Amino acid sequence: MSIPKLKTGIAAFDLISAGGLPVGRTTLLAGSSGSAKTLFGAQFLAMGILLFNQNGVFVTFEEQVDDIRNDLKGFGWDIDRWEADGKWTFVDGSAKEEDVITVGEFDLSAFRVRLERAITKNEAQRVVIDSIGSIFTHFPEHNIIRQEMSKVSMTLRRMKTTAIITTERTEEYGAISRYGVEEFLTDNVMILRNVLVNERRRRTIEILKFRGSNHVKGENPFTIVPMKAIVIVPISAMRLTQHSSSER
Amino acid sequence: MSIPKLKTGIAAFDLISAGGLPVGRTTLLAGSSGSAKTLFGAQFLAMGILLFNQNGVFVTFEEQVDDIRNDLKGFGWDIDRWEADGKWTFVDGSAKEEDVITVGEFDLSAFRVRLERAITKNEAQRVVIDSIGSIFTHFPEHNIIRQEMSKVSMTLRRMKTTAIITTERTEEYGAISRYGVEEFLTDNVMILRNVLVNERRRRTIEILKFRGSNHVKGENPFTIVPMKAIVIVPISAMRLTQHSSSER
Amino acid sequence: MSIPKLKTGIAAFDLISAGGLPVGRTTLLAGSSGSAKTLFGAQFLAMGILLFNQNGVFVTFEEQVDDIRNDLKGFGWDIDRWEADGKWTFVDGSAKEEDVITVGEFDLSAFRVRLERAITKNEAQRVVIDSIGSIFTHFPEHNIIRQEMSKVSMTLRRMKTTAIITTERTEEYGAISRYGVEEFLTDNVMILRNVLVNERRRRTIEILKFRGSNHVKGENPFTIVPMKAIVIVPISAMRLTQHSSSER
Amino acid sequence: MSIPKLKTGIAAFDLISAGGLPVGRTTLLAGSSGSAKTLFGAQFLAMGILLFNQNGVFVTFEEQVDDIRNDLKGFGWDIDRWEADGKWTFVDGSAKEEDVITVGEFDLSAFRVRLERAITKNEAQRVVIDSIGSIFTHFPEHNIIRQEMSKVSMTLRRMKTTAIITTERTEEYGAISRYGVEEFLTDNVMILRNVLVNERRRRTIEILKFRGSNHVKGENPFTIVPMKAIVIVPISAMRLTQHSSSER
Amino acid sequence: MSIPKLKTGIAAFDLISAGGLPVGRTTLLAGSSGSAKTLFGAQFLAMGILLFNQNGVFVTFEEQVDDIRNDLKGFGWDIDRWEADGKWTFVDGSAKEEDVITVGEFDLSAFRVRLERAITKNEAQRVVIDSIGSIFTHFPEHNIIRQEMSKVSMTLRRMKTTAIITTERTEEYGAISRYGVEEFLTDNVMILRNVLVNERRRRTIEILKFRGSNHVKGENPFTIVPMKAIVIVPISAMRLTQHSSSER
Amino acid sequence: MSIPKLKTGIAAFDLISAGGLPVGRTTLLAGSSGSAKTLFGAQFLAMGILLFNQNGVFVTFEEQVDDIRNDLKGFGWDIDRWEADGKWTFVDGSAKEEDVITVGEFDLSAFRVRLERAITKNEAQRVVIDSIGSIFTHFPEHNIIRQEMSKVSMTLRRMKTTAIITTERTEEYGAISRYGVEEFLTDNVMILRNVLVNERRRRTIEILKFRGSNHVKGENPFTIVPMKAIVIVPISAMRLTQHSSSER
Ligand SMILES: Nc1ncnc2c1ncn2[C@@H]1O[C@H](COP(=O)(O)OP(=O)(O)OP(=O)(O)O)[C@@H](O)[C@H]1O
Ligand SMILES: Nc1ncnc2c1ncn2[C@@H]1O[C@H](COP(=O)(O)OP(=O)(O)OP(=O)(O)O)[C@@H](O)[C@H]1O
Ligand SMILES: Nc1ncnc2c1ncn2[C@@H]1O[C@H](COP(=O)(O)OP(=O)(O)OP(=O)(O)O)[C@@H](O)[C@H]1O
Ligand SMILES: Nc1ncnc2c1ncn2[C@@H]1O[C@H](COP(=O)(O)OP(=O)(O)OP(=O)(O)O)[C@@H](O)[C@H]1O
Ligand SMILES: Nc1ncnc2c1ncn2[C@@H]1O[C@H](COP(=O)(O)OP(=O)(O)OP(=O)(O)O)[C@@H](O)[C@H]1O
Ligand SMILES: Nc1ncnc2c1ncn2[C@@H]1O[C@H](COP(=O)(O)OP(=O)(O)OP(=O)(O)O)[C@@H](O)[C@H]1O
Ligand SMILES: [Mg+2]
Ligand SMILES: [Mg+2]
Ligand SMILES: [Mg+2]
Ligand SMILES: [Mg+2]
Ligand SMILES: [Mg+2]
Ligand SMILES: [Mg+2]
Repeated sequence: MSIPKLKTGIAAFDLISAGGLPVGRTTLLAGSSGSAKTLFGAQFLAMGILLFNQNGVFVTFEEQVDDIRNDLKGFGWDIDRWEADGKWTFVDGSAKEEDVITVGEFDLSAFRVRLERAITKNEAQRVVIDSIGSIFTHFPEHNIIRQEMSKVSMTLRRMKTTAIITTERTEEYGAISRYGVEEFLTDNVMILRNVLVNERRRRTIEILKFRGSNHVKGENPFTIVPMKAIVIVPISAMRLTQHSSSER
Repeated sequence: MSIPKLKTGIAAFDLISAGGLPVGRTTLLAGSSGSAKTLFGAQFLAMGILLFNQNGVFVTFEEQVDDIRNDLKGFGWDIDRWEADGKWTFVDGSAKEEDVITVGEFDLSAFRVRLERAITKNEAQRVVIDSIGSIFTHFPEHNIIRQEMSKVSMTLRRMKTTAIITTERTEEYGAISRYGVEEFLTDNVMILRNVLVNERRRRTIEILKFRGSNHVKGENPFTIVPMKAIVIVPISAMRLTQHSSSER
Repeated sequence: MSIPKLKTGIAAFDLISAGGLPVGRTTLLAGSSGSAKTLFGAQFLAMGILLFNQNGVFVTFEEQVDDIRNDLKGFGWDIDRWEADGKWTFVDGSAKEEDVITVGEFDLSAFRVRLERAITKNEAQRVVIDSIGSIFTHFPEHNIIRQEMSKVSMTLRRMKTTAIITTERTEEYGAISRYGVEEFLTDNVMILRNVLVNERRRRTIEILKFRGSNHVKGENPFTIVPMKAIVIVPISAMRLTQHSSSER
Repeated sequence: MSIPKLKTGIAAFDLISAGGLPVGRTTLLAGSSGSAKTLFGAQFLAMGILLFNQNGVFVTFEEQVDDIRNDLKGFGWDIDRWEADGKWTFVDGSAKEEDVITVGEFDLSAFRVRLERAITKNEAQRVVIDSIGSIFTHFPEHNIIRQEMSKVSMTLRRMKTTAIITTERTEEYGAISRYGVEEFLTDNVMILRNVLVNERRRRTIEILKFRGSNHVKGENPFTIVPMKAIVIVPISAMRLTQHSSSER
Repeated sequence: MSIPKLKTGIAAFDLISAGGLPVGRTTLLAGSSGSAKTLFGAQFLAMGILLFNQNGVFVTFEEQVDDIRNDLKGFGWDIDRWEADGKWTFVDGSAKEEDVITVGEFDLSAFRVRLERAITKNEAQRVVIDSIGSIFTHFPEHNIIRQEMSKVSMTLRRMKTTAIITTERTEEYGAISRYGVEEFLTDNVMILRNVLVNERRRRTIEILKFRGSNHVKGENPFTIVPMKAIVIVPISAMRLTQHSSSER
Repeated sequence: MSIPKLKTGIAAFDLISAGGLPVGRTTLLAGSSGSAKTLFGAQFLAMGILLFNQNGVFVTFEEQVDDIRNDLKGFGWDIDRWEADGKWTFVDGSAKEEDVITVGEFDLSAFRVRLERAITKNEAQRVVIDSIGSIFTHFPEHNIIRQEMSKVSMTLRRMKTTAIITTERTEEYGAISRYGVEEFLTDNVMILRNVLVNERRRRTIEILKFRGSNHVKGENPFTIVPMKAIVIVPISAMRLTQHSSSER
């Protein structure tokens, strides 16, 4: 018997994760540029709204809010309406043209307050933070990254949200995270890959670590389909069901 | 249904990109030395003028304006005339023999003003910035690179231009960009390769990331043909048409 | 005749280790994220309680105590009761949301006092410290890491405990430890691997070094089974029994 | 129709380069130690004198002038006489035994004046600078290297000379240039290789980039023959002639 | 006729080394964690006592003296008695729980005095220093490492001892030593390997360099056998005897 | 017709070098630890004395003079007598036990004076400097290494000596020299290799660069034979004779 899970509603993912994302915990979602991190995060929120009537908060540190709204139209998700209905809330941490560049001391406590307010306001159960790559360029020291990131996780947990934090990778099979520490700080780690083999690309999703829980091990191929978004190839989910007792 | 595209007019490219470059957005074009970055950029402007009556701005940070004019004559493009007609405008950011070398604080706000004026003046819809490699050697810190580059993108977007920013790579299959952050900052990323295999070179173009849009995945071979410039081998475009529903 | 061992009670491990962990010494347990370091450590304590009536101390520097309690329920271990009975004691060194970040001088002497008290209080014979990765980000210099880590080992030895210290790796087959020195500082080194081969994962455990003692060499596959935790595939243990005289 | 070329007179090279080196531009010639950079440069000047009655300037930053004179005797070139006749001029930038070592600020403006004078004096049309490796160890910062190197190119161009600048590589197939920026600064890039395969060496020459011009792509084997110097194996030049329309 | 050797008494080693270790010189013994460096060193001293009535000094910088005594019991060596009889002397340079951490200037002259006294006292002919890895973390600069290490060698030589200095490696086939200079500083270099091949370990010993002396080249497999310690597989020693005239 | 050569008298070497070492120039001899650099250098001097009545100077920066004398006895060379006869002179630059460690400014002018005197005194025609690795750890900056090394070469040349400078490598097939600049500074470069293939070692010598001269390209196997020292396998020398016109 493993820890409780929150069904994501993402096709086949709830199978390979043995029930969804661990409730009340944070999952790190690492991937290279264009690996579908933002899409997976958005789909997690969209499915919460569409299938389970659970509200969501989407924190964007990189992309403009307007762009995200547009990017996702191709999947049939009417984010504007969800925002109007209080089901989807953006927390906009992206850079603006008029921002003044500041270097030096910086901590995330102000951000954590904003995040907390957004969660409270629409009683969000699902949170996506996309991505932490840009904020951490502010911190020269690894131990500060460790601490700040732990604190965000703790805030999310105290608010009883099930969260995804995306992070950037520059290689498909090298180090998991940019600073080599992020994966140890979170309870759960997933990897999105977009691998170039013989001049073609192959997309996969892997659950690398789910503390206290069983799950399918290894890479699962997926495709991005208009109006359906990420569709994980269901065949690989067999592994869990059939060999669960001997599964590593 | 994906986000709106601007037909480039470059042979076969509008097929593999499912309609052209995303309208009003910036695309990063990364490639090694001699991989045809400048050529692709110039061809994007030239086709705009020749086929769609859209004006363009070409920002050069490295090559001399005169050289570019000459380099491109071999493709039958009469840039001088286009400049006289107000269809093509150069913004010359290249080094001059008499420049005094300055080190230290540096920001791109003056440049953004010049860029804005050039765009306004000829009502440009297409912009090419070639290349950002040289300007970023001025910034020692990665977070400043992130911010400055975001701001240029925001200016371009506010001006409602569809833009290409070229960037240098020193390896064909290693890190996508020089600083390992540029690819995360732009909505779209394309890679030009010029790979040495068995003592011969093979050129390919890949759309790595188009946020919010479908496109052909993987590498597409191309050749450079006198009077035609970049000619992408059409066969690879089949993949999109035939398997679009199962495409990753 | 090799040095005395403490039976761990972990299935098949006592075979491949030729009797268990060296009594009164510290074993370094290195592994990547999700490689089952925490699980192995906890199982070592749980088996001590269940099979040998030996109490344990679990020091956590990363994960929250509550989470560990929950993560381990899936294996049928009732840690709450063991804690109430004075058989299992947590020393909580994990970060808290309200912690103030301090940089600079830092040593582990206060921690060693707490550790000593916890050991004394429940007369613990088994100790797990999980993990040292986060504390050592505080020390910029390798020779300080060497010294601080040696001192913790010496405290553990003086208390006559048999201990496991877990440490993080970012690659499965590269350097053994993060700083390249930890493995030389401890008498015993074990490695947990979670290797990606052809898009699937394979878990193994290896005893790399047991000073003054024989043991099975090389990797031994294992699985994580609900209610049983780590189950090492017994076949590999044959090597020790059959060829003990010619074993390398 | 591509940009105008200057016939080098080097056997088969004028074929693979589709007519020679681009007139009035600078070509970077990169190669490892002993790859024949100095020889190619000298042969370019010698052929100018012998076949086209064009004078040359040879700048040496590393080797002593006297040594170069001697090294080249084996190819039947009587440099002393050419010097007396004002056809070949050395600009000696090599270190001397009595030089005092200075560290710190350094720029190439004095050198550019000397270079300009030498070119004017014998009305040189061909210039070789061999090699820039040593001067650039003076500049700690990459952006200064970029600027100084651009300025030398601009001086050469203003003087209407066709020039070769040699540069050092330490690997045959890794980064093109020592600082990873030089290849982006020049209009043309060629690579000399001396590859160790199965304990034997194989020499090749590759035109990597000729801005605004067609050329044979890939590596062309060559040998060094007494009295003839570099002899490129003509077979590879076929590629240009035969497949010019489909050439990449 | 090569330089004089001291028979070690280690099975088969005196064959592959063509007579033992060079008399009066220092041999560097490099190996990864658990590669049997300490064991080889101790066996060298033990065999000196047991077979040749030669006394030894064992300097330990890492492991506790007590632990070494225990680790070696499994090979039937009664070190306590040897110590009582003045045949084996420990010089204890290991860290203690109460040590205060000091950073900064540090030299090995005090250590060299202690070493000299220990050698004089029991008229030692054999010395082992295990290992130098920890002391050199004190020296930030490579040239100081070179000099300090040379001086220890010179002291050992002046005392007319035949010595082994162990040093740490983190890879089996990469750089020979941690700082990339140690191997050039000593007259003799040997490597212990513990290589992982197909999930199994293989131990070998190689004599890489014996200045002024012949020896078997390449790796020789060995095993660790209870009561016998290191047993080198004798077959490989054939190479020396049979092909000595054509040996490389 | 290539530049004049000095017959070394080393078996088969004078064949593969097409006559020996270039007269009056300096040759860099790079090799890993134990690759026979010192032996080759000494043999060059010994053969000069034995076969051509040419005196030599041997500069040692690393090994003690006494050790070199002993190491070379195994080849039947009576260096003591040669020293007494004024045919062989040692310049001892090796570290001494009583040396005080100094950091900071350092130049080689004092050394060059000593070197000049030794050459003058015994009218040496052959010089070996073994090795430059240790002196250059004193210079933090690469441009100083370049200049100091050039100056030593210039002194040697002014004295009309034919010289070998040995230098250290830590890999058999990676960078040629430790600092990546030495090979560009000398007219001639040779590499000694001691490669591990399938647990065995294979020795080869390669002439990588001989400015202004033909030579056999690629690796030539050699062995070290008692009383004969380095014996290069003659078969490989065929390549030069047979294919000299088509040799690369
Ligand atoms: N409507 C669509 N149809 C098909 N594929 C799409 C569609 N929208 C997006 N994609 C694919 O998804 C990719 C973008 O995914 P996403 O923006 O989630 O990546 P990301 O990992 O967040 O990248 P970044 O790190 O740059 O933010 C696009 O490059 C495209 O290949
Ligand atoms: N007229 C032509 N015919 C054929 N090929 C050409 C022609 N003009 C250019 N090329 C090819 O295009 C290459 C140059 O492309 P381009 O200048 O666009 O590269 P780039 O990626 O901008 O390089 P850099 O980073 O150095 O600026 C040339 O090296 C040549 O191989
Ligand atoms: N109940 C369970 N059933 C099956 N597998 C489980 C179960 N609980 C945990 N696991 C597996 O064990 C992994 C976690 O192991 P553990 O937390 O011990 O790793 P770790 O090495 O400590 O990681 P980290 O370095 O991140 O702390 C999970 O990712 C999961 O694959
Ligand atoms: N007369 C000759 N006959 C045959 N080969 C020769 C002759 N002269 C030179 N060579 C070859 O050319 C090589 C030297 O070429 P060159 O000096 O041009 O190289 P380089 O690239 O300038 O080297 P560096 O970077 O060290 O200056 C020699 O190593 C030799 O192999
Ligand atoms: N009695 C024994 N029987 C069999 N093998 C043994 C015995 N004692 C030690 N070993 C083997 O020898 C290894 C330890 O060797 P040793 O301590 O000499 O290594 P080391 O190279 O000094 O390591 P470190 O760098 O960590 O000090 C053990 O890991 C074990 O595999
Ligand atoms: N008499 C001999 N018989 C056979 N081989 C010998 C003899 N003397 C030396 N050797 C071989 O030569 C090697 C040493 O060569 P040498 O000292 O010249 O190397 P090196 O390149 O100078 O090393 P370092 O960089 O450490 O100074 C020895 O390791 C040995 O293998
Ligand atoms: Mg994204
Ligand atoms: Mg360009
Ligand atoms: Mg853990
Ligand atoms: Mg040269
Ligand atoms: Mg040891
Ligand atoms: Mg030597």
